[in-house]
Amino acid sequence: MINLYDAQTKCLVALDSIIFGFDGEVLKILLVKRGIEETPKTWSLMGGWLRPDEDLDQAASRILKELTGLENIYLEQLSAFGAPDRDKISRTVSIVYFALINVVDYDDKISDSYEARWFALDDLPPLLFDHGDMIRMAIEKLRYKAAQHPIGFELLPEKFTIPQLQKLYEAIFNTTFDKRNFSRKFLSTGLLKKLNEKQRGHSKKGAYYYQVDLEKYQSEFNTFLNFTRVSSNS
Amino acid sequence: MINLYDAQTKCLVALDSIIFGFDGEVLKILLVKRGIEETPKTWSLMGGWLRPDEDLDQAASRILKELTGLENIYLEQLSAFGAPDRDKISRTVSIVYFALINVVDYDDKISDSYEARWFALDDLPPLLFDHGDMIRMAIEKLRYKAAQHPIGFELLPEKFTIPQLQKLYEAIFNTTFDKRNFSRKFLSTGLLKKLNEKQRGHSKKGAYYYQVDLEKYQSEFNTFLNFTRVSSNS
Repeated sequence: MINLYDAQTKCLVALDSIIFGFDGEVLKILLVKRGIEETPKTWSLMGGWLRPDEDLDQAASRILKELTGLENIYLEQLSAFGAPDRDKISRTVSIVYFALINVVDYDDKISDSYEARWFALDDLPPLLFDHGDMIRMAIEKLRYKAAQHPIGFELLPEKFTIPQLQKLYEAIFNTTFDKRNFSRKFLSTGLLKKLNEKQRGHSKKGAYYYQVDLEKYQSEFNTFLNFTRVSSNS
Repeated sequence: MINLYDAQTKCLVALDSIIFGFDGEVLKILLVKRGIEETPKTWSLMGGWLRPDEDLDQAASRILKELTGLENIYLEQLSAFGAPDRDKISRTVSIVYFALINVVDYDDKISDSYEARWFALDDLPPLLFDHGDMIRMAIEKLRYKAAQHPIGFELLPEKFTIPQLQKLYEAIFNTTFDKRNFSRKFLSTGLLKKLNEKQRGHSKKGAYYYQVDLEKYQSEFNTFLNFTRVSSNS
């Protein structure tokens, strides 16, 4: 009897993680410099191989920590990439994860012992394998999410100014927004709470800080869900 | 020099597809009966192994066709599952896909040569490996999507009645909705066009058929995106 399992192609399984960060001015991606085998060192996502005893999520977190020192970051699975020739040396299927972080909160936690560096989205270096495609898909996902909900808040510090928020949305959508319209429309969502405090040093007038009204944000998150749930009699 | 590639664990890569179907009354999942090696035959998702020359999407489509006869169905990647012990015989990472179809449109295309059968969501048989977890995650995704947009429309025939729409939403959210509220709230979205035609045989009075206003549906799909885009000056 033929052993069905033994007759199948075996693959390496890699985990690659995309870390988006916003520093208040520019949307960035964290990259490391890696060389595999005899290939020259190239900038790449935080990647490595699955070990026998690991679940996928565990492996992604372990690899991120090994290459950057970062831990306790919520990594969300984006997609699996498995084109037959994506890694020329050995058939490898990569499971891609992504995370959004606020650069200021994490920058000093990135270990100096690795060549990890932030790159602006519009100024990425040549990348290993199909890592450019992975990043493009992650940006699409980020745009989709930011279009559905004000997801960008996750990338901002706890208190932020409207110009910072606008810069973030301009970076995500790679466009520019009219200043007065952007401000008026975002304030009209009622999701922002104005603080009695101004940002210093950026302009003579200064810009007020805002915070997200988390309670309202949560309740508005699933607009259509609420719409259906409200009509439930169960 | 150690060959880094050879030192890594190799895995089998499986593709498993979840096909949701709605027949106007009940939300169902298509399953096939499979036995691998000496295991007794168990109901399972449409699953099989990745071949050396295939991309992941190609493999999922090929397997779906081999096991059910169905082709040209848009399969969306859901997630990769890779717990170390999910398949006891060999370490296998599964890439899971899902699709939404209207049962009526496809039922006669499902080949009789395979043991493929529709099961109501609330009456699933015991399933192979972690296929139950995969289905639970797919239902969560379906609920999330149906909460964001009226995604359920994809599962309905081209023209449908409000009671059919309500049954679909009740099946997705596993709840019941008040009839008058559901109807009033859905009609108030302005996404439905009433046809001058009634469904026969279901009740004395008969229920009017509706169609989705596709143009309006598209333009409302990305509500928040529109909100930001409108304010763009680029």
